[in-house]
Amino acid sequence: MIASDVPATPQPAAAIPPTMRALRKQTAAPGFTLERVAVPTVGPNDVLIEVRTVGLCGTDLHIYEWDRWAQRRVKPPTTIGHEFMGVVAAVGNAVKAVAVGDRVSAEGHIACGVCSLCRTGQAHICEHVEIIGVDTDGAFADYIRMPEGNVWKLDPSIPDAWAAVFDPLGNAVHTVMAADVSVKSVVITGVGSIGLMAIPVARAAGAAKVFAVDVNPQKLALASRVGADATFLATQPDLVDEIISRTGGDGADVLLEMSGSGSAINNGLAMVRNGGVAALLGIPSDEVEINLAERLIFKGLKVLGINGRRMFETWYQTQALVTSGRVDLTPIITHEMPFERYDEAFTLMKSGEAAKIVLTL
Amino acid sequence: MIASDVPATPQPAAAIPPTMRALRKQTAAPGFTLERVAVPTVGPNDVLIEVRTVGLCGTDLHIYEWDRWAQRRVKPPTTIGHEFMGVVAAVGNAVKAVAVGDRVSAEGHIACGVCSLCRTGQAHICEHVEIIGVDTDGAFADYIRMPEGNVWKLDPSIPDAWAAVFDPLGNAVHTVMAADVSVKSVVITGVGSIGLMAIPVARAAGAAKVFAVDVNPQKLALASRVGADATFLATQPDLVDEIISRTGGDGADVLLEMSGSGSAINNGLAMVRNGGVAALLGIPSDEVEINLAERLIFKGLKVLGINGRRMFETWYQTQALVTSGRVDLTPIITHEMPFERYDEAFTLMKSGEAAKIVLTL
Amino acid sequence: MIASDVPATPQPAAAIPPTMRALRKQTAAPGFTLERVAVPTVGPNDVLIEVRTVGLCGTDLHIYEWDRWAQRRVKPPTTIGHEFMGVVAAVGNAVKAVAVGDRVSAEGHIACGVCSLCRTGQAHICEHVEIIGVDTDGAFADYIRMPEGNVWKLDPSIPDAWAAVFDPLGNAVHTVMAADVSVKSVVITGVGSIGLMAIPVARAAGAAKVFAVDVNPQKLALASRVGADATFLATQPDLVDEIISRTGGDGADVLLEMSGSGSAINNGLAMVRNGGVAALLGIPSDEVEINLAERLIFKGLKVLGINGRRMFETWYQTQALVTSGRVDLTPIITHEMPFERYDEAFTLMKSGEAAKIVLTL
Amino acid sequence: MIASDVPATPQPAAAIPPTMRALRKQTAAPGFTLERVAVPTVGPNDVLIEVRTVGLCGTDLHIYEWDRWAQRRVKPPTTIGHEFMGVVAAVGNAVKAVAVGDRVSAEGHIACGVCSLCRTGQAHICEHVEIIGVDTDGAFADYIRMPEGNVWKLDPSIPDAWAAVFDPLGNAVHTVMAADVSVKSVVITGVGSIGLMAIPVARAAGAAKVFAVDVNPQKLALASRVGADATFLATQPDLVDEIISRTGGDGADVLLEMSGSGSAINNGLAMVRNGGVAALLGIPSDEVEINLAERLIFKGLKVLGINGRRMFETWYQTQALVTSGRVDLTPIITHEMPFERYDEAFTLMKSGEAAKIVLTL
Repeated sequence: MIASDVPATPQPAAAIPPTMRALRKQTAAPGFTLERVAVPTVGPNDVLIEVRTVGLCGTDLHIYEWDRWAQRRVKPPTTIGHEFMGVVAAVGNAVKAVAVGDRVSAEGHIACGVCSLCRTGQAHICEHVEIIGVDTDGAFADYIRMPEGNVWKLDPSIPDAWAAVFDPLGNAVHTVMAADVSVKSVVITGVGSIGLMAIPVARAAGAAKVFAVDVNPQKLALASRVGADATFLATQPDLVDEIISRTGGDGADVLLEMSGSGSAINNGLAMVRNGGVAALLGIPSDEVEINLAERLIFKGLKVLGINGRRMFETWYQTQALVTSGRVDLTPIITHEMPFERYDEAFTLMKSGEAAKIVLTL
Repeated sequence: MIASDVPATPQPAAAIPPTMRALRKQTAAPGFTLERVAVPTVGPNDVLIEVRTVGLCGTDLHIYEWDRWAQRRVKPPTTIGHEFMGVVAAVGNAVKAVAVGDRVSAEGHIACGVCSLCRTGQAHICEHVEIIGVDTDGAFADYIRMPEGNVWKLDPSIPDAWAAVFDPLGNAVHTVMAADVSVKSVVITGVGSIGLMAIPVARAAGAAKVFAVDVNPQKLALASRVGADATFLATQPDLVDEIISRTGGDGADVLLEMSGSGSAINNGLAMVRNGGVAALLGIPSDEVEINLAERLIFKGLKVLGINGRRMFETWYQTQALVTSGRVDLTPIITHEMPFERYDEAFTLMKSGEAAKIVLTL
Repeated sequence: MIASDVPATPQPAAAIPPTMRALRKQTAAPGFTLERVAVPTVGPNDVLIEVRTVGLCGTDLHIYEWDRWAQRRVKPPTTIGHEFMGVVAAVGNAVKAVAVGDRVSAEGHIACGVCSLCRTGQAHICEHVEIIGVDTDGAFADYIRMPEGNVWKLDPSIPDAWAAVFDPLGNAVHTVMAADVSVKSVVITGVGSIGLMAIPVARAAGAAKVFAVDVNPQKLALASRVGADATFLATQPDLVDEIISRTGGDGADVLLEMSGSGSAINNGLAMVRNGGVAALLGIPSDEVEINLAERLIFKGLKVLGINGRRMFETWYQTQALVTSGRVDLTPIITHEMPFERYDEAFTLMKSGEAAKIVLTL
Repeated sequence: MIASDVPATPQPAAAIPPTMRALRKQTAAPGFTLERVAVPTVGPNDVLIEVRTVGLCGTDLHIYEWDRWAQRRVKPPTTIGHEFMGVVAAVGNAVKAVAVGDRVSAEGHIACGVCSLCRTGQAHICEHVEIIGVDTDGAFADYIRMPEGNVWKLDPSIPDAWAAVFDPLGNAVHTVMAADVSVKSVVITGVGSIGLMAIPVARAAGAAKVFAVDVNPQKLALASRVGADATFLATQPDLVDEIISRTGGDGADVLLEMSGSGSAINNGLAMVRNGGVAALLGIPSDEVEINLAERLIFKGLKVLGINGRRMFETWYQTQALVTSGRVDLTPIITHEMPFERYDEAFTLMKSGEAAKIVLTL
């Protein structure tokens, strides 16, 4: 179907108010403020989504706390948030496959669509990407505007809270699928919410064994609950030897690095067998010193940098994992709270007691 | 960049007349007629291209002759032609990266953009594809409308005649790259214009040896001229043994099947070594009987069906091959004629004396 | 370690009698005879294995019945059988890593070791392969001689009956892993013993959905028991449409063809989505007519011929699947009988009532 | 063929003297000494090769100079050298496919043959590997013993000097083929002898563009002579930007890192486009600090550690590249000298004036 075949008149929209609530970084300082701002307008290829449930991410906390990374990257005033789901409230006049009333989530990386990466199925690493809630107005608001191409229609069997966290779940799925875990032994270093999600995902994707490593015993307990075959404190002195011994003396086939810690990366690489794969998703805050000769070159390792989610291969895989009943997020979404209690939610998140928190609007 | 950022007003267009010449299949009968029809209008995401040079394809000849395939597929009245290049004359108001005056070719498979294949980088096998000049109005006309997403901006170093045949050249590139010929021995069965193009493409892509097989000695002479290491008549009685003997007794690493002939397919599979690859681009007109046990299963073969061109990985590869000077189409574009002499061109094409014919408007 | 470092004297062997029982095809006629023959001697790189448990394969039944294939391939007199496990009784003086007393199974395809396929990790498609029990003396005997390189040391947790069928289980694993089923929908056509094994293997390897198709309702009932998400009679008139509808309208991601039936192959290809994968393991007895254009080329399919088991990647995967507890063969090994009752076993096998039968020596 | 079928008596051997010349590291100190030692004996699976031509490698120079690496790794007294070719003088009694008189080179990594890597086609990263001339007696001698499985029979068209350097040429081929350069832009950092070899190899394997970077202008001049499209001093201040600009603004598709320099690695990663590949062959002498977030993770890079040569896929590819005439080593083998002038050769090598030096025995 070509674009000129689409109806020239906009589709009937739900009643949309002129203003809405939005959680905003108003000034270059810690904290957020809940304000009223204008509801976004939509262009011909855009969709307006009424947000229902949102997820809290570590990135949001960085912006909340206004750390060095946030100070460099975020330009206040801006609306925060990139994990969300909702219902379509209006569509632009060239929109083809999304309709008012559709229950949706969306890919928060808005790729340019015209660069060589976008045109070759690699939009997840578009050099001109803008991330909602970081570079442009985000999802912690009553409405958000998204390009049609970013919208993901939800299977009715998927609960709102799960749909709201398809973004981090997609990070986990992307990492697992890039590494190819089928009938392999897998070590996950770092079981924050994405690392936790990676456990049932790796098992469903065919991992023969899943080992989890973290500094936090509570997170390790949760890791066991969601399917890790064994868990280890990152501080255990003989950890590398233990993993090697538990994998027939060869080392693990696959490392999924989700902590961003330099020592986890170095230890993780040491745990992988010759010819194995290491997929790096965790973002180190500084440069990392690596013995490339011993850790990577002589071993013939393959190291993969992982960013975002493949558009939209990862989304189809995420949907298949969830709708087939093979991945259960219930134990990982530890808290569901009303939107207004966002301050309490961020405090809880900072305490390390929560895994994944969602807010309902 | 998101769509709402694009200028609301259309860009200044070149003077576009209300009507144009178009080569049409007017009725369900052999032949074409050159007529005047309205210039197409453009939707928000469309581009109007003033056509300069077009290529003649076997598909056009099928439609000209109105054979069984054409009778089933094509719905007159319609404008013919899918190989072309030209200059952008107008753009829709949501077009982002194409401007009036751009010198362009375009992908002639118009994919739906919203199915799972389109959303996972596999638009070349979209189930809802429409092909210009077959399913919708084509390029043998002064103007053609294309979705922006199908347009390919041309490097200035590429001659018009070469740009006009990026579609079949892309078929050759897609087949060669899917089969992966780097440092491998390659047999090409069928050296019509795409098979001929596949010879320099395979060499440039790293093939260690390229053998060409055809029933037509003239085509084989041309195959030698464009780089085949050796050529063979398809009727040579001991052909399979000869290819096996010339590949160290193992058989060729790769078969590129570009004839669609059942016997070429069977012989071709027999020429491939155990564990080798066969990429099938040629379209058999009937069912083909294959000894799957001997030809495919015991040998551990990988057989790839090839359709169209990858959007737009193949286009980037085609551009790299041509602009690096490693592929030369000069000997393959045997005839360049004015648009009005289309009848003579189809007669010439049918005679088998031409390789690739282009027409200038 | 290099060969000259191995001890010059043979290792102490268990008491080995001069003669042994062997189930033999004595003459070019139906049936087998149980005879006494000399125990094989071993060369410097060989291992002598005392056989404990063997598995019955369709190939053995072909030889028993002396059908056309068997008449062409098998040269009596010869000992039959290729699925087995046992204990090492003696080793040649250049054997490096196998010792008397080791509990082992073995790869029954004896590859030449020196051709280009053997030297590039593709010994499973060696052109000079000899199969035990078909081309050379087999495993239905008290002892069998194997090259050290073919021997597989067994994890102690694996029951004898399971170890005896690592050959067909390996066929299933090879097919599943070649097709890559992780987070994909899978159709298996033909659920004889290998097709049945492929069900839990595909699930453990990460398949999101497994559908089984067969002509035999009993086999389909067993398919459900071992984990098929849904089963279908091959004769169901709208089967292709049903599979397509149950896979979101696209078709299955993967076909595992294990019947060798021409109509199963054609229907199976029709059930696969554009861009999908079909792995063919079943051996058709005749040529198969295929509409390559519609079934394979336009769809951009990848078709894989599967032969034997990868040496020894498949064996490591098989071991991982079994020792991790993710694959359970109990429901599939339906009968365990003493060696002497081989005639009864073949009759039972022919009746179609058994899935996999093993005999103990 | 199974081992017991081989003739029990050794094949007739050429007259082999009891002692031979050997270039040895006699004590833990700089320099080598040319001595007379016993000719090695062969085990059942071994081959004795009369050495004709040898190549000098940087590793030999490290041992000559007795640097820190050599002090840790090498145990005097031992014979040096791992790049060589010669003629088979004797074979063990279980040798199958190599005969006295065969003209051969050999893989110098002696893998254990029994570990999981060796049994899955990854012997090049066997954890128990022993390297000739480093861990065991090497090739700078009149005779060397090799396991049959390591021997490579030479095509008669290959000159002795080229055959002698199949080891480093194989490093180049392994790196190029692992990275997959077909129709891609390639940057090579470090054009010592392996980096130089990688240039014609990458071109023959289908690279669309090859850029060479080094600190030595003489090496860059040679790089141009063997086919680099452009060369750059590593000290050029805007080098990263220049490479990006010469690759359409995206960066190179592939980095082949052959210097082992930390700054080359960091700059090299910066030159690669998002989604590109970096193959690391050069061995850094120390840990390297890397900004993993910017250089690898956000970019979605694939980084490959490369070690040795694939046994024997790389050898077949090397042979195909050389016998097809697509790779010419003539300009790279800058010096051919008699064995006795080894001291002069190492001095020349150290001066940086030579690319590859071979010695004839």
